[in-house]
Amino acid sequence: MKSSIDINCDLGEYSNHALADKDEAIMPYISSANIATGFHSGDPLTMLMTVRLCKKYGVAVGAHPSFPDREGFGRRNMDLGLDELYAILVYQIGALKSICETEGIALHHVKPHGALYNMSATHAEMSRVMIRAIRSVGEELVLYGLSGSEHERMAKDEGHPFAAEAFADRAYTTGGYLMPRSEPGAVYDNQRDSINQALSLAKTGIVTAASGEQIRLRVDSICLHGDHEDAELLAKRLYGRLAEEGVLVKSVR
Amino acid sequence: MKSSIDINCDLGEYSNHALADKDEAIMPYISSANIATGFHSGDPLTMLMTVRLCKKYGVAVGAHPSFPDREGFGRRNMDLGLDELYAILVYQIGALKSICETEGIALHHVKPHGALYNMSATHAEMSRVMIRAIRSVGEELVLYGLSGSEHERMAKDEGHPFAAEAFADRAYTTGGYLMPRSEPGAVYDNQRDSINQALSLAKTGIVTAASGEQIRLRVDSICLHGDHEDAELLAKRLYGRLAEEGVLVKSVR
Amino acid sequence: MKSSIDINCDLGEYSNHALADKDEAIMPYISSANIATGFHSGDPLTMLMTVRLCKKYGVAVGAHPSFPDREGFGRRNMDLGLDELYAILVYQIGALKSICETEGIALHHVKPHGALYNMSATHAEMSRVMIRAIRSVGEELVLYGLSGSEHERMAKDEGHPFAAEAFADRAYTTGGYLMPRSEPGAVYDNQRDSINQALSLAKTGIVTAASGEQIRLRVDSICLHGDHEDAELLAKRLYGRLAEEGVLVKSVR
Amino acid sequence: MKSSIDINCDLGEYSNHALADKDEAIMPYISSANIATGFHSGDPLTMLMTVRLCKKYGVAVGAHPSFPDREGFGRRNMDLGLDELYAILVYQIGALKSICETEGIALHHVKPHGALYNMSATHAEMSRVMIRAIRSVGEELVLYGLSGSEHERMAKDEGHPFAAEAFADRAYTTGGYLMPRSEPGAVYDNQRDSINQALSLAKTGIVTAASGEQIRLRVDSICLHGDHEDAELLAKRLYGRLAEEGVLVKSVR
Repeated sequence: MKSSIDINCDLGEYSNHALADKDEAIMPYISSANIATGFHSGDPLTMLMTVRLCKKYGVAVGAHPSFPDREGFGRRNMDLGLDELYAILVYQIGALKSICETEGIALHHVKPHGALYNMSATHAEMSRVMIRAIRSVGEELVLYGLSGSEHERMAKDEGHPFAAEAFADRAYTTGGYLMPRSEPGAVYDNQRDSINQALSLAKTGIVTAASGEQIRLRVDSICLHGDHEDAELLAKRLYGRLAEEGVLVKSVR
Repeated sequence: MKSSIDINCDLGEYSNHALADKDEAIMPYISSANIATGFHSGDPLTMLMTVRLCKKYGVAVGAHPSFPDREGFGRRNMDLGLDELYAILVYQIGALKSICETEGIALHHVKPHGALYNMSATHAEMSRVMIRAIRSVGEELVLYGLSGSEHERMAKDEGHPFAAEAFADRAYTTGGYLMPRSEPGAVYDNQRDSINQALSLAKTGIVTAASGEQIRLRVDSICLHGDHEDAELLAKRLYGRLAEEGVLVKSVR
Repeated sequence: MKSSIDINCDLGEYSNHALADKDEAIMPYISSANIATGFHSGDPLTMLMTVRLCKKYGVAVGAHPSFPDREGFGRRNMDLGLDELYAILVYQIGALKSICETEGIALHHVKPHGALYNMSATHAEMSRVMIRAIRSVGEELVLYGLSGSEHERMAKDEGHPFAAEAFADRAYTTGGYLMPRSEPGAVYDNQRDSINQALSLAKTGIVTAASGEQIRLRVDSICLHGDHEDAELLAKRLYGRLAEEGVLVKSVR
Repeated sequence: MKSSIDINCDLGEYSNHALADKDEAIMPYISSANIATGFHSGDPLTMLMTVRLCKKYGVAVGAHPSFPDREGFGRRNMDLGLDELYAILVYQIGALKSICETEGIALHHVKPHGALYNMSATHAEMSRVMIRAIRSVGEELVLYGLSGSEHERMAKDEGHPFAAEAFADRAYTTGGYLMPRSEPGAVYDNQRDSINQALSLAKTGIVTAASGEQIRLRVDSICLHGDHEDAELLAKRLYGRLAEEGVLVKSVR
């Protein structure tokens, strides 16, 4: 059984600075933040303010780059050339890296957002280009990606650091993939279910698939969603339960 | 009389990659490029392609950051807080710096665009924040700004490298400022006038104001506009005339 | 004492369609919706979905146009020419009008957003151009604006229908203006205070200024903010209290 | 042989108002303008100014809607739901319709842009949704689409007015489709070839495919590209040649 686990959360996904309080409330209970870099949400000032929050709470800063799609919150598949994919990643990661440096901290990881995450998870060539773009900005920048996906395979192939991510509030197929959001029951609406799945993933990597079968995943980090109304409460409870079981919330590497 | 002068030009100000040819045509005749960083024009792939052109032709790469105003081409005054001004500059300059690094070359300078250029030229506090943002990304990044303006004063005050810019095709007031574009005759439509003014500025820093008076400016770089139909021709002729007079076209520092 | 009052709320201010539930929850308790038209927030599909909600609940549809400033949520002063101001208003109002028509309902009103609201409230010429833009799309489109401001004066001057708006959760100066958000106490954080002020405004138009003095405003509509976590609860309670006092929640005209 | 032909051109595809002169230069030689509606290029003020130019020169005004993709100039395939496709079309067409009305002229047609044009040309369901969106704004708004494509079939199926478009400067396959831009020779760089093809298309609808075979197309309108440097010259020469042959340049219907 593991003695520590990383908890990551997508933050800075707004352009209304009044919402910064919501992001701060969750900070004490997570170890990694994925900060929106302006292409699906967020903006430079929000990025700067969120980096400052991460510094204050000792949370590792990651870039959360997206397809250029503010209108669709980065959730729409887009048909970009590989050279453009490369360029939009270097741009977004580089922008956040400079914002981190201006605050005297280091950028730690990269987690692709939305449609970019899902498309690249099953598309080897997209994953390879993504990893090369990340490496060109920093060879140490850990890729946070889907456990068992092309993210993991291509990171291994390119010799790039990788953290396998699993989800507290999403149902899994027997093959270890996420149930599509369009299926009933794909997203848990019960906080207890989310906490139980997160605890099991954190301790053993075992998750009960929608079929009832138990499957085992590599799990370096667990993703909590920060945009639920009760996100803070879920994060706090999970943190407490992990503590009771002797599991520390701690960033990878 | 000077033996060399920098010629700078704004490039990458489109999102239609078919236009890259126009930018390439002017490359042999300039020494510095100011590349649009996506806030008034341009996009990551255009930035990458333009950086590659600069590398090919030995042209120094500069960032050309703007207010966030694609709809208005960055030409509208905007009322941003100083913290937001700082953040948008670090974001844009950092993004281009990473794109330069991925191509193995160094970012060389920063020249603010449009309304950001004009507002900060007469606004000490904006100039100071701008220079601090530039320094936080790189202390060596030369600020290209208006000769004799707050750009120059604040750069001196902060101990930051500065290049004084003058314009080939713009009329000057007796005080050494640019005539507002709204005045008749503010922008020369005759190529010969532009070339003659550029030659005088390059060799002696002397320009004939609209009043007829001769004034003297500090001139480290001359700005040519790349969006005229005959931009390439103007650049080529000026380059030839400077060569005849023994003045080399060469980047600052 | 009035027997009815309009309650208006800004809706559709997101691009993440999952948030539509929040907007629907408040619908039973309001009579007018101001729908974001894509320049500070929102997008065409969100507009269409929000128009459908309005139709379902019998809520009057208004356009909520903004300066072109998604990055700043339309809260930053911008320096637009009057011809551009005119054009952005016709564009946004026309777009929502067509979306209403495709659903077989009529666009009812226009309420400017954020910095556009505040700047035009004290700027006669901006208000006049705004009203002319509204009239060019539809002479029947009621302008919702600040009670006692240039909105009201210019609407009268142009012979255009006007609804005077007051705010449940904002402190007033003795002169009848809103306290700037930057002042302490400018925005009420106590729901009871908001409900009491709304009740007084609805029944008598009387509000207690921050100085303690009682002032009287023309009040045709009361604005509730929909982006608070407890917006639905506030709307529901106010609706109940108004019902107890015999005041009907009903759209203007 | 035909006695008249429509010549259409994409205009207003910029956000730098200085470029309006280029658009005006071509006006005397065309009969229909497709005005960018802000999603791939253009902005409300440019739209208003271009509508005024159309009014001055008696050119029919069309909307040129796009996927929401300013970064990619609307040339990237995007995976939008049909409800969102519907909404973005009503929004863009409605916005331009209101701008036309404010100038006292009628919107005449709709021509989809870039990737939206190409995807819908071979996708029956997209074409059907597009036509329904157009009809909801105005049943009289002629769809300009690709001759022999799903545009034409679905317009017939929905009983909607249609104008079949052919291209002066693009090579055709034997099947009557456009050669992909990626193929060598797909876009003519020789003005004489473009004029000869346009003349043949205008008079007889016959075009020589890349294979050498002659094919016959339904041709109601010929598209000229306005973003070439010599666009004005091409338009002027074609206009002159058509006049010599007794073919009038005249909008459909």
